[in-house]
Amino acid sequence: MHRVKKGKIETTPKVAVRNAEDLSLAYSPGVAEPCKEIFENPKTVYDYTVKGNMVGVVSDGTAVLGLGNIGPEAAMPVMEGKAVLFKSFAGVDAFPICLNTTDVEAIVETVKRMEPTFGGINLEDIAAPRCFEIEERLKKEMNIPVFHDDQHGTAIVTAAGLLNALKLSGKKLGEIKVVVNGAGAAGIAIIKLLMSMGCKHFILCDSKGAIYDGRPYGMNQLKQDMALVTNLEKRDGSLEEIIKGTDVFIGVSVAGALTKEMVKSMNDNPIIFAMANPVPEIMPEEAKEAGASVIGTGRSDFPNQVNNVLAFPGIFRGALDVYATHINEEMKVAAVKAIAGLVGENELNEDYVIPAPFDARVAPAVAKSVAQAAMETGVARRQVDPKDVEIRTKDLTMIDNT
Amino acid sequence: MHRVKKGKIETTPKVAVRNAEDLSLAYSPGVAEPCKEIFENPKTVYDYTVKGNMVGVVSDGTAVLGLGNIGPEAAMPVMEGKAVLFKSFAGVDAFPICLNTTDVEAIVETVKRMEPTFGGINLEDIAAPRCFEIEERLKKEMNIPVFHDDQHGTAIVTAAGLLNALKLSGKKLGEIKVVVNGAGAAGIAIIKLLMSMGCKHFILCDSKGAIYDGRPYGMNQLKQDMALVTNLEKRDGSLEEIIKGTDVFIGVSVAGALTKEMVKSMNDNPIIFAMANPVPEIMPEEAKEAGASVIGTGRSDFPNQVNNVLAFPGIFRGALDVYATHINEEMKVAAVKAIAGLVGENELNEDYVIPAPFDARVAPAVAKSVAQAAMETGVARRQVDPKDVEIRTKDLTMIDNT
Repeated sequence: MHRVKKGKIETTPKVAVRNAEDLSLAYSPGVAEPCKEIFENPKTVYDYTVKGNMVGVVSDGTAVLGLGNIGPEAAMPVMEGKAVLFKSFAGVDAFPICLNTTDVEAIVETVKRMEPTFGGINLEDIAAPRCFEIEERLKKEMNIPVFHDDQHGTAIVTAAGLLNALKLSGKKLGEIKVVVNGAGAAGIAIIKLLMSMGCKHFILCDSKGAIYDGRPYGMNQLKQDMALVTNLEKRDGSLEEIIKGTDVFIGVSVAGALTKEMVKSMNDNPIIFAMANPVPEIMPEEAKEAGASVIGTGRSDFPNQVNNVLAFPGIFRGALDVYATHINEEMKVAAVKAIAGLVGENELNEDYVIPAPFDARVAPAVAKSVAQAAMETGVARRQVDPKDVEIRTKDLTMIDNT
Repeated sequence: MHRVKKGKIETTPKVAVRNAEDLSLAYSPGVAEPCKEIFENPKTVYDYTVKGNMVGVVSDGTAVLGLGNIGPEAAMPVMEGKAVLFKSFAGVDAFPICLNTTDVEAIVETVKRMEPTFGGINLEDIAAPRCFEIEERLKKEMNIPVFHDDQHGTAIVTAAGLLNALKLSGKKLGEIKVVVNGAGAAGIAIIKLLMSMGCKHFILCDSKGAIYDGRPYGMNQLKQDMALVTNLEKRDGSLEEIIKGTDVFIGVSVAGALTKEMVKSMNDNPIIFAMANPVPEIMPEEAKEAGASVIGTGRSDFPNQVNNVLAFPGIFRGALDVYATHINEEMKVAAVKAIAGLVGENELNEDYVIPAPFDARVAPAVAKSVAQAAMETGVARRQVDPKDVEIRTKDLTMIDNT
């Protein structure tokens, strides 16, 4: 399919140029009018150009899917795929920008220089720890939303699943003990987001075991930063030792990292998100046999799939519709609650804590909530009625995939 | 129209994502297959991604139409319009990249970093002299075609018109005396292209008159370079003095720069290209009264319109179809001859030396000739049968411009 189609997106005119009059409107001399308007009133770039609906999907190809550092050319199919999802799920135009540099400063400068073209930037598949610095710098230095989906998309959908799983187990977010296995971009983002929602007790593990302030081996700046706000008792030990007596396991690590014995050592009705791909940290049937109440994975063939497509299309739709300058913590939490809220109380069960990826209610609900949160927190450049935040997806019925 | 549509292009999926299976093909896990292929065999990026049909339309907004330095946001409508023309005339996908820097080094570095995404770069509306250095650097440092349309598009169409005009006047390219008025990007490009085709005798004028080696006022590096290959007699004087006894006037300057008296002072049957916009250097009826044989302008309401849309869509179509690394002089000359050749000998007359912008034969003819020239001169990365170079334009009948 990728070969037959020679890529998965195209740029399509919204105006037809069929004769001299069309040409004089779409191009010279007619095009001078919107140019002059924007020159005189820069904000109107959102009215007259694609900027207000256009997201740049930016990657350096250093951490692509499970494939690792395959480079920017080989990352193109993923970034095109992402663009397809943006348009299909939320009517957001998106364009792949794959950069042949891995230098933080070079990536930051390059993306900043493209700000006139884009209404938002989605960072994708950039290896840690550079992804953190790049995102932080761009968020500070640009006036359009910058969102690293590998971090925040995963965090938002996981948090939504956790909120609903806690309803089933009767436990409270502020009281649960959470082990996060995997100290990469997603693991750290999950902790930060859950903290901002009131979750307090975390232990972050890497392949060497629990991370704590002063651990004499395998540390880096990111782990050190996290050590200051997690595992305050400075517990030392392997995952096997640390997981005893905890309530939630969140895995963004490797296949097989979690055993039945470990699950059995957790508190009653433990909640497991085993998101290693394609093989999870523990298979759902094993976790269930060991007493887990709710199990989520990254896979579509098991219940409770943590799929980023539940988050990023609606988040950007909402942010773009209010001409947001940033995607802040409140907007992310609004997305979490919107996703969680779509699972009705009488539908909620251990196999249904997260809506399905093709639940058409998700993107509009997320978009409206995110737009509302943006307006309430002062990052919206215009006010809209949330009910006017619409998804505007295209009719895909005419596309033949064969 | 620009406001109602909120810009003039969109990014559209070529594959539909309607269910879990579609998703698993277009995105994870299926997308890993083309990624791995490209990683192992980088050339297949042309087979599996949009790169091979995607042109970046790059501007810094410093020389937009007749509006001047209006900045990158205000340039967006023009670059979107260009993208519309690329797709409408030649089936080439194009995407506007407007940069908020005017620094040569920054622009060069930024565009180079985007090479994985694009199969070609069209530079647009960048002020001289920076446009020359940017184009030269990018041509040397990139492995995809880089083309500054304001220079070469105008030069190619002018040269095509001139070839046909010479047939009418019975004069020879190698013998005519040409005055070019306007020492900017287009004027210099016209001289260089005509020189490479065998035209020999030029005088380049700026607002201060004829340029010659050693002129003690109003020189810059570009004018100095041109002074070494034009006006070798070092004639000094105003346009009025210099134009006497010449055969061709090419104006890329300002309205009213050419008078009837000046035309009368030229050799018999002078040829006039008066391309100042929107008001030409001399109005066609005046030039004709003064004895001009052929008159071309930039305007659609007069005969012989020099419109770049005759050149750039077909040139990029041809270059992309052979995965060209560069657009070289031979490819430009091939485009000139293809355009000129479409005016049949028995149709040729003083009001028809250039095909009309909507002549559907033009883009395919240019594309085939350019592809052929690329293959013959060693800049093609693959060989194709020129008859397979097709335009692949989209059906625009469903687009409503109102």
